[in-house]
Amino acid sequence: MPLVRISHPRRDDPAFATALGDAVHRALVESMNVPADDKFQIITTHDAGQIVHPPAYLGIAHTDAVVIIQITLNTGRTVEQKRALYAQIADLLADGPGVPRSDIIISLVEVVKENWSFGDGIAQYAT
Amino acid sequence: MPLVRISHPRRDDPAFATALGDAVHRALVESMNVPADDKFQIITTHDAGQIVHPPAYLGIAHTDAVVIIQITLNTGRTVEQKRALYAQIADLLADGPGVPRSDIIISLVEVVKENWSFGDGIAQYAT
Amino acid sequence: MPLVRISHPRRDDPAFATALGDAVHRALVESMNVPADDKFQIITTHDAGQIVHPPAYLGIAHTDAVVIIQITLNTGRTVEQKRALYAQIADLLADGPGVPRSDIIISLVEVVKENWSFGDGIAQYAT
Repeated sequence: MPLVRISHPRRDDPAFATALGDAVHRALVESMNVPADDKFQIITTHDAGQIVHPPAYLGIAHTDAVVIIQITLNTGRTVEQKRALYAQIADLLADGPGVPRSDIIISLVEVVKENWSFGDGIAQYAT
Repeated sequence: MPLVRISHPRRDDPAFATALGDAVHRALVESMNVPADDKFQIITTHDAGQIVHPPAYLGIAHTDAVVIIQITLNTGRTVEQKRALYAQIADLLADGPGVPRSDIIISLVEVVKENWSFGDGIAQYAT
Repeated sequence: MPLVRISHPRRDDPAFATALGDAVHRALVESMNVPADDKFQIITTHDAGQIVHPPAYLGIAHTDAVVIIQITLNTGRTVEQKRALYAQIADLLADGPGVPRSDIIISLVEVVKENWSFGDGIAQYAT
């Protein structure tokens, strides 16, 4: 159910994008009880200037390594679950692909459960 | 009013993207009473690995032909209208451009009517 | 806090994208009290056919110069603030980078304040 959009600066290493996607998915599974096989992502690379960021915001400095992660997911997660998700994404992206923790920007968009179809033209979550 | 984002695997056939967009729009018009000339879409092609999907989810197998459709639209549609939209998109994409029904992923994001401007800096739907 | 996605037709002028982003940000700061250093944007160029628009909608004609701006931001802005934002974006994009006012399409997506992390894995706006 989450649809994850990851926008990152262009790199010559194709494994980087895969590592980003895997890390975000693991955090969703572990922090928010997303099913392990509910993994739908769009990962895009961007040339210099396409990802715009300030030098710093709220006391956190940003570099051109900024990665922007926007996740559409169902409503119902608590603030504590969201905090856990952000912390785990930062941990995993820093430890694995090596994105600076300060350069990880996350945005959540919440929707109701009948707003998804996962194939075959069916609203799998609607009741 | 709907803003439609369609993400599909790269193809050498430029007519494919047009056919995807036309099919999604027709389904919106017929299933959700969207005006025929209210057609705003961003259709992007993606290289292998940029559209991430599981081998299967909820019993539906997915291939690298997965197309992800995210539609921002006004609130107010019923669950039945959403079901009809998903079914019609699947029918039209399978019959026309030939996307496997199992590979059509749809996500809706709902907003209030004052959240749009369709040119000239005016909030056309605000009352 | 706003995350701004700007989709524009491909141009040979790299300053065009920067001018688009700067204009939208200035409008957010002046019309909606967004902090000046809260500037996160993804600006993408699109080939012919990737940005789909009708010849006209609601009496406004559109050309292939259409620019689509989707802004994710916190709830709480009034309709009047949204009207002011649209008007100012249109003014600034027409005066600066020269986008026809009729070709500026804007979509807002509103979220709650705990739906953001601006680095370091923290939910900076959650209380």
